[in-house]
Formats: sequence, structure tokens, C-alpha cells
Amino acid sequence: MIIKDAYPGSEKVYLNGELFPYLRVGMRQVKLTDTAKKVDGKLHFTKNAPVYVYDTSGAFTDPNIECDLKLGLPRLRESWIVERADVEQLSHITSDYGRERAADKSLDHLRFEHICNPYRAKAGKEITQLYYARQGVITPEMEYVSIRENMNNAQLGIQSHITPEFVRSEIAAGRAVIPANINHPEAEPMIIGRNFLVKINTNIGNSALSSGIEEEVDKAVWSCHWGGDTLMDLSTGENIHETREWIIRNCPVPVGTVPIYQALEKVDGKVEDLTWEIYRDTLIEQCEQGVDYFTIHAGVTREHANLVKERLTGIVSRGGSIMTKWCIMHQKENFLYTHFDEICQILAAYDVAVSLGDGFRPGSIHDANDRCQFLELDVLGELTQKAWSHNVQAIIEGPGHVPMHKIRENMDRQLTSCFEAPFYTLGPLTTDIAPGYDHITSGIGAAQIAWYGTAMLCYVTPKEHLGLPNREDVRVGIMTYKIAAHAADIAKGHPGAQVRDNALSKARFEFRWKDQFNLSLDPERALAYYKENPHTEGEFCTMCGPNFCAMRLSQDLHDCAL
Amino acid sequence: MIIKDAYPGSEKVYLNGELFPYLRVGMRQVKLTDTAKKVDGKLHFTKNAPVYVYDTSGAFTDPNIECDLKLGLPRLRESWIVERADVEQLSHITSDYGRERAADKSLDHLRFEHICNPYRAKAGKEITQLYYARQGVITPEMEYVSIRENMNNAQLGIQSHITPEFVRSEIAAGRAVIPANINHPEAEPMIIGRNFLVKINTNIGNSALSSGIEEEVDKAVWSCHWGGDTLMDLSTGENIHETREWIIRNCPVPVGTVPIYQALEKVDGKVEDLTWEIYRDTLIEQCEQGVDYFTIHAGVTREHANLVKERLTGIVSRGGSIMTKWCIMHQKENFLYTHFDEICQILAAYDVAVSLGDGFRPGSIHDANDRCQFLELDVLGELTQKAWSHNVQAIIEGPGHVPMHKIRENMDRQLTSCFEAPFYTLGPLTTDIAPGYDHITSGIGAAQIAWYGTAMLCYVTPKEHLGLPNREDVRVGIMTYKIAAHAADIAKGHPGAQVRDNALSKARFEFRWKDQFNLSLDPERALAYYKENPHTEGEFCTMCGPNFCAMRLSQDLHDCAL
Repeated sequence: MIIKDAYPGSEKVYLNGELFPYLRVGMRQVKLTDTAKKVDGKLHFTKNAPVYVYDTSGAFTDPNIECDLKLGLPRLRESWIVERADVEQLSHITSDYGRERAADKSLDHLRFEHICNPYRAKAGKEITQLYYARQGVITPEMEYVSIRENMNNAQLGIQSHITPEFVRSEIAAGRAVIPANINHPEAEPMIIGRNFLVKINTNIGNSALSSGIEEEVDKAVWSCHWGGDTLMDLSTGENIHETREWIIRNCPVPVGTVPIYQALEKVDGKVEDLTWEIYRDTLIEQCEQGVDYFTIHAGVTREHANLVKERLTGIVSRGGSIMTKWCIMHQKENFLYTHFDEICQILAAYDVAVSLGDGFRPGSIHDANDRCQFLELDVLGELTQKAWSHNVQAIIEGPGHVPMHKIRENMDRQLTSCFEAPFYTLGPLTTDIAPGYDHITSGIGAAQIAWYGTAMLCYVTPKEHLGLPNREDVRVGIMTYKIAAHAADIAKGHPGAQVRDNALSKARFEFRWKDQFNLSLDPERALAYYKENPHTEGEFCTMCGPNFCAMRLSQDLHDCAL
Repeated sequence: MIIKDAYPGSEKVYLNGELFPYLRVGMRQVKLTDTAKKVDGKLHFTKNAPVYVYDTSGAFTDPNIECDLKLGLPRLRESWIVERADVEQLSHITSDYGRERAADKSLDHLRFEHICNPYRAKAGKEITQLYYARQGVITPEMEYVSIRENMNNAQLGIQSHITPEFVRSEIAAGRAVIPANINHPEAEPMIIGRNFLVKINTNIGNSALSSGIEEEVDKAVWSCHWGGDTLMDLSTGENIHETREWIIRNCPVPVGTVPIYQALEKVDGKVEDLTWEIYRDTLIEQCEQGVDYFTIHAGVTREHANLVKERLTGIVSRGGSIMTKWCIMHQKENFLYTHFDEICQILAAYDVAVSLGDGFRPGSIHDANDRCQFLELDVLGELTQKAWSHNVQAIIEGPGHVPMHKIRENMDRQLTSCFEAPFYTLGPLTTDIAPGYDHITSGIGAAQIAWYGTAMLCYVTPKEHLGLPNREDVRVGIMTYKIAAHAADIAKGHPGAQVRDNALSKARFEFRWKDQFNLSLDPERALAYYKENPHTEGEFCTMCGPNFCAMRLSQDLHDCAL
């Protein structure tokens, strides 16, 4: 499934912690060849330092670890969690639905075989990263991400402000989160916040009309391989519970879900039959499986839903439309809003982060930045403070479809309304007219809003609006969003972000083609494109040919007097 | 070659001029189906107005015109030009090289068969659009573009400021150009300026290592078909002269070239053998064939070339590196700079616009916005004024590789240094790390700089840095840049730009799938993606399935009380 040599010239390396020496933070080291230069007829060689690349692929790309999907990934964080002595391993699953599925023999052939009993906070104990940060405690997770964010800085002598203490202080302020359910110890800690590297999320998941477990697990691993920082399983089809178990056990990055999707499946798609009790049990079921963050559309209120009627494209969030329909049918307020304190109490017991969904996000350029959208944002701010009061880590979801000149207002308002909690946007798409290319319409907006301060970008694939993405779509979506995120990192001046650009451009200028490809986001594709045309010599490509290669001419000039 | 039904649901229509009633401005009308709505159990239908789309495909998509590549396109502007009575048709080609090629029997099998004798300004006559604009004269070309820019405005009652008189005043101020060589009467007039729709240029052309005439003509027509507003023939291989003739005769959009490429071919790639005389003859040769604008690297000066040594990636412009090498070898100033007045005199006689090349554009994030780049920009400003003093229309070329936070400075400085002459940028690429995806790294920068005021964007294909683009690359490059340009048009508030977005989103919300696809930039691809997955009903797609389709839920809610 994983192509071990998809990153040629690379090696998995580990850096150790200082506060926690047992930490081994994986990254990818790209080794470079020497620069050769003729001086007085003799070739001189100069070394090029290796470049370290942020690596989300986990153990799958470690040649020393034999990965077996049937066994799941090593439980990296389990000892850290247990050592804190504030959690207990339960003797059984406490969600009714979870127990029911576990007892159903007819599902045995689908089931992941090595399910552990879930952990939960001991009664009266606070266990979230936010709680620890507020107490002034630096956790192993915090040091882990500080090492991870500083890939190239130590060797280059770049003084980074991203220390374990800085990580702690950002989490304590609510400006960053480490989504890390104690029941997903396989995940490598990562941080989402605007003073860190911009992250990208990928969505996978089946729908009623498509794809099975194997395909979804394959997509999950594939997504991590290419650089997805978190993964949302948006399955709405059959066997959601079992599919999710397989994904979580094999996923080295945090996993998010939208629990209302499964709750709706449990009532056969009948919105009117949704109840708080069913939803509550779904939360517990997923907390015990190890989901790291939940999208919860608690900001969708009856009052604001009325404003939707002024729109061109109404509600385009699935969760938003479900909850609105429920409000109408029951003539009651959204139960996610009314039960939000209880929701937070559940999440706090497993350190699941809440991602406050923007159920009223605009679905077209026409509807961008309207009252409905921004009134919901204010409600999300109110809920953020409530989450924080329960020590639950919170992020805020954002649009959607927004023209370029209206993007800045989204970021500014989010920072104010939601007290600087991390922003997590879907694009935004900067025009509606290009179905089939919405990775690009949205990549443009994503780069811009990430530069302004969005902490995580939810990818969009070429199939957006048209169908479910296949493997190639996932890859293209990830590449587009890695580009947007990295462009923003550079623009924001993230320490060391430009190291890779400089190394690649130097390799390009010196015709070290292999180094150029090995340093690129997608070495395989770059090489394949290069090989499509004949290259008679090593130095130039078909784009310009020998006489018109500016870089060669420019090299020739380097030592000339002008 | 052209797929006549690539735009289903569309029809070629023509709007007439008012000042010049004989004008027939072609555009594409997308017909829409009715909106169906159930009211009290009965279906009610409401009409949706057709949407007009800017059309660069010329006669090729007019079912009433039989296009034959061997005959070339109809000579649309010839009568307008002749009527002005300030040009004469020469009895023969005046370029030495052009005559030589014409007389060479061995080229007969390659040659376009119906070459007309060239037109040139009568002695003492000024014939450029800039000259006319300055005299207060509105030409047919000016009214043509004013109609073209206002596609949807008349029917929607949008009061546009883009009148023929506005077009004239923008050209007179140097803020816009209509590249319109009198020897390319086949081209449909188009305008480049920041107060008009953002335009995109595509590059085609063979290199020493690839592709023949047929393939290049095919790419040219293909480029126009998908929406390229201008086309640069950057051929550097064999039979440049004959290839260009075929392209121009069949190209409904302005054609640009970089004449130094051909001049260098004429001296077998030996930079030291380049002379002003060879270059001059090349200019005349191409003016007489009908090239509409020339990239001329006259801003590359000896003094500033020294600054290149401080760079990571030196000079990455082919023209820039050629001229720098020439300066070093001859220890003389760039002859394009020293002969710039003569160059302008030649261009003025055919109304060829000058595109002042940025020979020192940065080739990496590291080199962006350096002294070398901005000192050249100041020289381009000096040359702009010189061009204007000869009534030559001028545009300014810009970078290249620029991180997002440094893009604004490029635009601001260009406006000041070059007196608001239209800016024409290559991207810029916002990171160096994604060869194979540089249409995207650059699309992000392109959208941004176009929003700030860049008038035309030079596309970048996925093959940038790797090889010559094939048909699919050209298509993807164009789509990416159409998106960037359109996103900028919306952000700039171009009158009527959002009409298409609104119509498409309305169709999407109402599940009028065909209308949605027909209104999209690439209907064929959108439909193909849609069809990849099974769609059991007409209403939803595989992305969400029936129970989770937000738009359907949202539709259901529209008439409910909340």
C-alpha cells in the first residue's frame, strides 16, 4: 500500500527530547549531493547540508518497523498517558451502541481484531492538554511538537521561538491545540495554531453509494503518506463504527469526525428521529474509539437560521442543514447548543478537542460574509469560552466560498469573535465557476487566509461538488494544500520555512536534478514529468533546450567581469 | 482539432457596435433551463436568463464559418485598417531574412500558401491605437473591446463605466493597450489594462528538442479554445519563421514573441555573434508577419547585471541571460537599450506593442524583490516613456518567484516606476518546492497580484521547470489562470464579473446539473468527474448521498417556519 521508495534520497530519522529524553520525533531527512564547481580547470566539491522535512507518514515509512494493518500502529503515547496517573482503563466500552456492535457476531469478519479497552479520566481528574498548559505543566506532547516544528533550525543555527514553554503558553491561551485523545495513542502529537506551521486536513470516508473499509483505510494511510496533518473520517455509509476503528488504529495523525453523521445513520436518515440521547451515546462511542476532534454544529441556532432565506444557496453544510431541519420539525432550539456543557464534559474526559462547525458557512460567492455567517461566528465565540471553561481544547471552522476581497474580514472577525482560538477553514473557494478545479479555486483562498492567520486548512479535491475523491484526487488535493500552507508559512516568516525552498532552488540552479526532485513535494511526479521528454544532456530540459537555458548561461557568467 | 461541442448548451452570438454598426463582437451565450418549483402541489417554472461568456475561440466555434487552417481565419480588421488611409500595402517583404525564406524553394512544403504582402504606415503617418487615443479618436477596435468587456451588462441593466470613450481614455493615458498589428487582421481586438477584465497569456512553441509546425498550430488553436487571451510563440527550434506564419494566420487572439530567440537561432546559438542589424531585421520580419507584441529585454543593463552575483539563482530569464552574456563578451552596453528609439520607430509603423521584458526577474523565493530586480524596473519605466514618445503601446513584464508577503510591493513599485503602464506577470510562484505543480504555486500568486492590479497573467503549466507542455498541460495551465484572473475580476469588482458565479451557484442549488456544467470553465471535465461515480437519482451526488445532501435539505427548509 505504501510505496517505501516514493521519497528517494530520503531517510527516516528521529530527534530526541531534552525534557523527555525518551521522545523520538520522526522526520524525513533528505540527503543532498555535493556541489561541483570548476576552478582553474579542477573540479571542487562543496557539501550541501541535508534538509529535514516535516513527516506525517508515521511508522509506515520506517524501514525498521514492520507495519501490519491488522495489528495497527505502535501505541506511541500510551506510556506517557498512563504515567500521568489521572486516567483509568475501563473494563468495557461504555457506549450502548459500541457494546452492541462489539457483541454482534455477524460483524466479526469486519472487525479490527485487537481492540483495547478504552481509557477515560479518573473521576474528578482533569486530563486535557489545555488543563496541563494552564497549570504551567509541559507535557511530552508539548515538547514533541516543539521539536517537530523546528525541523531544520538546530543544524542551521536558527534561533526559534518555538520552545516547549512557548507551546505550553500558546495552548494555555487557547491559541493552539494538540488534538490527542487518550484512546488514540498511535497518533504522533501535532499542534494547530497560527504561530506554528500551517496544517492541512484531508477528508475521506464512504457514503451510502460507495467504497468499503479497505478502500478507506488505504486512503487514510495514503493521505498521511503525502502529507495530510489530520484526517477526517466523514463516512455516512455502512459500518461506520468498524471502518473508523480500522482507520484510527492505523492512523499516525489525529482523526476527526462529525458525530451527527453517524447519529443520523442510527435513525435511518430520519432527521426528526434524532435525539440528544442518541447523539450523546455516539459521542461516547467515538471518544472511546479514539477520535481526536469532533466537528459539532452547536452554533446553528433557530433565530439565525431564518436569515438563510435571503441567500442564493441556503445552507451547504451537511451538519448545519441537519440541525436546522431538526429545529424546524421539533420547533425547539438545536440540542447541540442547549446541551453544550454536557458535550464538553464528555470530551474533557478523553481530551477530545471540539471543532466548532460553521453550519451557516456560505456556499457561494454571493452569500459570503453575510449576517447569517457572522452571527453564527459570534455564537461560536460564546461556545469557545464555554469549552475553555471545561478545559476542552477548541478550534473554529470557517468557510467556504469567499471572494478574495472578503477573506481578510473573515480572519479578523474570527480572531475577535472567538478570542484567537485556532481557525480551520475549508478553502475558501474564490470563485464558483470551476467545478473540476475547485482544489485550485480554493487553494488560492486557502493560501491567503493561512497567511492572514488560519491555523489549519481543510483540503478540497478536484471532485468537490461532483463526487467522492479517489486516490489521485486525494494526492492532488493534498499537494495543492501543502503548497498553500507552505506559501503561507513563508509569508508569515515561520522560522526555517524557507530552508527547503532555498535548497531546492540551489539544486535547480546547479543542475542537481535528483536533489531538486528529492526536495520537492512530489518527487515521483516531478521526475515522471521530466522524463516525458527526451533529455540529451544532463544540464538542460526540453523547456529551453541547450542554447536557451538561462540557468546555464547565468552559471557561465558567474565569474565574468561585467 | 476543435471540438465544436466542447461547450454544450452554448451558442456563438454576435453583438453589433453603435458607433461602428458593422462591428460584430463574438461571444458565447450559455442558455439555461427553467427553474422548477412545486407550489401547492403544482410545478411552476421560472425562466433563467442566458449568461454571456467572454469568448477567445474566434471563428473556430462558429458553426456558420468553415475554418480551414490552410486558408487561415477571415481577415476581420483589414477593412477597418485600410479605411483609415494611413497605411500602405507593400509590394514585397522588406526584411532580408523574410525575403530569403520566401525565395527558398526547399521550404515550399512547409509554407503557409496564402501569404499577403505586408502593410506598413505611410511615411510620416502615425497609426497606433495610442496615437489615435491621444488624438481623441475612438477606433473600431476601441468600441469592439468595450462591447466585449460588457458581456452580461446590457441585459442585466448593469451600468458599466467601460464605454468606448473610457477605453480611449485608458489607452491615451498608457494604462491600457490593444495589441493589434495591422498585419494580423485576423485577431479579434482585446484590451489589456487594470481597469478591464484580467487577461491571460499562454506560451507555446517548439524547442530544439521537440515538436513540429502542426503540433504548434494545434496548440495555438487549442489555447484559444480554452480561453487564452493572447498567445506567445516562444519557438526556438527549426523553421521558426514558417511556424509563426501558420500560427498567426490561424490565431484569433494577439500573438507575442521574443525576437531575440529567433535572432539567436540565426547565429546558430552563438551569443557573441548577435548584432543589432540581425536583431533589427528580425523585428521587421516579425512585424511584417503580424506579431502583435514583442518582449524586448532592453532593461538589462551592464551596471545592474553585476548585482546578479549576490543571488541564489542568478538570471532565469532566457532573454536576460542572453543579453547579459552579450554585454560581457563585447564589453558593451545592451544593444536593445542603446537602440531603443530605433526599435520604437519600427514598432510604431505596424502598431506592434512593446512588452518590456524583466530580464532580471527573480528565479527563486530567495531572490525576490532584490535590488537587481527593482533597479531594472526603474529602467523599464524610463523605456516606457520613450515608447510612449513614439506612440508605441507598452506593457511591463513582471516576476517570477515571489513569496506572498512580497507581492504587493511588486505591484506598487511597478505602478510608480512605470507610470501605470499595464503589468504582465509570470505567476508569481509563491514557493519553489513543488515542481510538477507550479501551475498551482503560481496560480496563488497570480490571483493575488491580479487583484492588486496586474492586467495580464502569463500562465504557468504543470511542466514548468521540467519540460515543454503537452495539450493537457496547456489546458490545465489555462484553467488555473482563468480561475486566477476571474477570482481577481470579482475581487476588483469588475462590472458583471460575478454574474456567471451567481448563475452557476443558483443552478447548483436547484440541482440543474447540466446548467451547472455548461456554465463552468471546463464543462467536459466537470461532467466526466461527475459521471465517474454512480448517481442513482438526479438530485444528489456521491459526495454526500441522499440523506446528507445539504442542498436538498436546505431546499426542503426554504418554505418552513423556523
